Amino acid sequence: MSALIIAGHEFQSRLFTGTGKYASAEAMVSSLVASQSELVTLSLRRMDLKHQTDNILKPLQQQGIKLLPNTSGARTAKEAVFAAELAREALETDWVKLEIHPDPRYLMPDGAETLFAAEALVKKGFVVMPYVHADPVLCKRLEEVGCPCVMPLGSPIGSNMGLASRPFLEMIIEQSRVPVIIDAGIGAPSDAALAMEIGADAVLVNTALAVAKNPAQMGEAFRWAVQAGRLAFESGLGEKRIQAKATSPLTEFLGGLA
Amino acid sequence: MSALIIAGHEFQSRLFTGTGKYASAEAMVSSLVASQSELVTLSLRRMDLKHQTDNILKPLQQQGIKLLPNTSGARTAKEAVFAAELAREALETDWVKLEIHPDPRYLMPDGAETLFAAEALVKKGFVVMPYVHADPVLCKRLEEVGCPCVMPLGSPIGSNMGLASRPFLEMIIEQSRVPVIIDAGIGAPSDAALAMEIGADAVLVNTALAVAKNPAQMGEAFRWAVQAGRLAFESGLGEKRIQAKATSPLTEFLGGLA
Amino acid sequence: MSALIIAGHEFQSRLFTGTGKYASAEAMVSSLVASQSELVTLSLRRMDLKHQTDNILKPLQQQGIKLLPNTSGARTAKEAVFAAELAREALETDWVKLEIHPDPRYLMPDGAETLFAAEALVKKGFVVMPYVHADPVLCKRLEEVGCPCVMPLGSPIGSNMGLASRPFLEMIIEQSRVPVIIDAGIGAPSDAALAMEIGADAVLVNTALAVAKNPAQMGEAFRWAVQAGRLAFESGLGEKRIQAKATSPLTEFLGGLA
Amino acid sequence: MSALIIAGHEFQSRLFTGTGKYASAEAMVSSLVASQSELVTLSLRRMDLKHQTDNILKPLQQQGIKLLPNTSGARTAKEAVFAAELAREALETDWVKLEIHPDPRYLMPDGAETLFAAEALVKKGFVVMPYVHADPVLCKRLEEVGCPCVMPLGSPIGSNMGLASRPFLEMIIEQSRVPVIIDAGIGAPSDAALAMEIGADAVLVNTALAVAKNPAQMGEAFRWAVQAGRLAFESGLGEKRIQAKATSPLTEFLGGLA
Repeated sequence: MSALIIAGHEFQSRLFTGTGKYASAEAMVSSLVASQSELVTLSLRRMDLKHQTDNILKPLQQQGIKLLPNTSGARTAKEAVFAAELAREALETDWVKLEIHPDPRYLMPDGAETLFAAEALVKKGFVVMPYVHADPVLCKRLEEVGCPCVMPLGSPIGSNMGLASRPFLEMIIEQSRVPVIIDAGIGAPSDAALAMEIGADAVLVNTALAVAKNPAQMGEAFRWAVQAGRLAFESGLGEKRIQAKATSPLTEFLGGLA
Repeated sequence: MSALIIAGHEFQSRLFTGTGKYASAEAMVSSLVASQSELVTLSLRRMDLKHQTDNILKPLQQQGIKLLPNTSGARTAKEAVFAAELAREALETDWVKLEIHPDPRYLMPDGAETLFAAEALVKKGFVVMPYVHADPVLCKRLEEVGCPCVMPLGSPIGSNMGLASRPFLEMIIEQSRVPVIIDAGIGAPSDAALAMEIGADAVLVNTALAVAKNPAQMGEAFRWAVQAGRLAFESGLGEKRIQAKATSPLTEFLGGLA
Repeated sequence: MSALIIAGHEFQSRLFTGTGKYASAEAMVSSLVASQSELVTLSLRRMDLKHQTDNILKPLQQQGIKLLPNTSGARTAKEAVFAAELAREALETDWVKLEIHPDPRYLMPDGAETLFAAEALVKKGFVVMPYVHADPVLCKRLEEVGCPCVMPLGSPIGSNMGLASRPFLEMIIEQSRVPVIIDAGIGAPSDAALAMEIGADAVLVNTALAVAKNPAQMGEAFRWAVQAGRLAFESGLGEKRIQAKATSPLTEFLGGLA
Repeated sequence: MSALIIAGHEFQSRLFTGTGKYASAEAMVSSLVASQSELVTLSLRRMDLKHQTDNILKPLQQQGIKLLPNTSGARTAKEAVFAAELAREALETDWVKLEIHPDPRYLMPDGAETLFAAEALVKKGFVVMPYVHADPVLCKRLEEVGCPCVMPLGSPIGSNMGLASRPFLEMIIEQSRVPVIIDAGIGAPSDAALAMEIGADAVLVNTALAVAKNPAQMGEAFRWAVQAGRLAFESGLGEKRIQAKATSPLTEFLGGLA
């Protein structure tokens, strides 16, 4: 399986993860370690809480996992830029996952504000990984303003609906000159494998790991699924078709024996 | 991952495979070895050809792989029973994959003839693994006549359409007291993972491996996918739902910092 | 829209209906009349109840609707044949919808018993309309024993899941020389329209009409949907494809105006 | 079926149509008349050609059909605003369908430019009907800047893939306070019926009518499908569920007769 490079950083694992919704810090750490993920996103809120930070961040950093602060909760470009700057200071990293969602019900991202914030953050020297709807034109424009990857959603965040936006993801993958990371909605290893099979460069999974009855084992399951999907993509999959290839009936063969 | 037991035989791998459609015997052997499959089905025609047998069977048997003769090409119960008896003699095994398909175009199985042949073969001491449509009532009746497992199809053989018959497969899995092996139509690792996630005990994959540009690597991909799907099933998957859980907006948090 | 002929009987409407699950006899009659259905199936139980019969059957017969007794509740071929004979006597019709479902949970049909009963009933002079799983081989065999049509299911009865068995229905439609009527699972007018678009000759709808808040208006909705789907089938639908046809950009045109 | 009101204009038909891709002006007029559509969109290019205008526009206007100029071909907000102003002059209407698609391959709309142009056009007194990706946040913002409806796509234009963006369309319909018109990708009457069943206020169909072998009959098919879907929506559809309601077996009934 080939490595993935984003902004000069090489990843052996194509499974990115998050820190939300776990029942405990221990469950989270065991799940992330089992997943062999090398990039873990976390929200500004988590960074701020001094005590929790010790529980969460240290074990991850000791595993050599790269931390990716996100702007989750921001409702405008302005809020997101402010959050990104706070995060840079707190975690000493230029990397940021840009999330802007004014909609409290479905947490759907705001494309226009994201584009505006991405442009501003790139100018400030950030490595901007934007979380967006599966919108091919928006992804192209984010690439043009300097994002080193795009992160279109598979389906509504937390929905476990998989690749509901598949035809649009396929357009994005075909047209993009930067890595495409499918984020949100991936609810099962089969979804992650499918994402890789259609040519995504990586996936980001959080809810499916965090809410599993056994998060560590689910981490392992997603590890294998991403590897399976990527290997299949690199191995060349067959086409779907309804008709079986006719084989000669056994009758003749049995007749030949008689 | 727990082991699978069929008729007293224990399998560590839940990936069953076949021998058809490979470009060469070498491609087949390398694919099957990489897949770590422990049960490989092959048609009577293959067994018969003396020279080919040496090329195909020996390397597999040396790997400790169990061979499963099938009755592919049989169009009636009578032909299938005859083919099973020839296979028992040739391969010295009581195991047989029962396939009866009078339809040369789509190779769809004949349920009534399969039920009839299964009953006859069980009485003759065979371990009968019947390939059938995803028909819950038929699967129940095959279990009742003594089949130690059932093999409903995911979608038309060779179609790579995945689990087209999913709601019916879910009924079969719920109702069956013998292992359920999803056979036919599994075209990608994501399909195999999904089959395991919904609770299948194993999958049988052939075309997807044989027609891959790199069959050995595809064998490895399916190995991981089956493992991923089974681990996920055992770890407890989350529910699908459209609405995200609302999180408190970042605004308040940012406000608190000001 | 061309007419449909089954066993010499001509139908202007390709929407067949049932009598189960309605809140009242009045709701049922208004729904069936609005649907313009010309064939309505009813179970033996209904026929037997003298008083109910007057309420239900008379208004339908006065509308010129043909009544089709069914063997719903039968669990074996023997029970079904007995039920068909009782129905013939009670309703003075040779037509029978053959339903055999030993499974009380999902009411899935038993293919082998249905084939057996169909053969027996055809010999006794019945016009046999068999309700079966979407099994292409079974449908072919039912045609061969003399059924004037086949009735494969779209999805589990009462599930409103639409054409879950679509690839198998398409095979049946392609191969059948008798009319194909899609029965069970059709939950919305869009499902009925789709059934007609893929080439079904008719649909049978019951639950979706009976459980609607406004059964009469839903009857009208299905009437139009079946007509829409059939007209579309006869008009020739376009192919699905992902890529838009490029059009020349407006820029040149606007430039030409400048 | 209730009427639809947009910007004070009442429509009896919820089927909107277009003028592209027809083999001839005659085929177009016969199809549109049969569809009973009351709103037909056409591109600026068509308006400009004097002779063609006579062929196309007069027969439509004589039928009382409202013409809706569109900005198809525009690649930026600036081009779209210019095109809208030309169209207003040519057709003497404030109504405009706003389309901005810089992507020549898939004709996917540009959300940020569309939002910008919509705001400008509303200020200039236009009735702006924006064609956009199925982006819930964007649709909300278009509503906020004064659009009297939104037109999210079902699937890529010309793809005939139906409601590929369904979960996002359902969010838009739930959240919108202006009518939602599903535009692009509707390839068959069943797609149009489904759009109405999930609560869309109208659909816009073009390719499916224009490329049919019999465009007039296909126009009629869509007319009925839209009516069927709307009536079903207003009648209250049942829920999807896998399990049938158990009925008492016929055995007891037959036993009671013995």
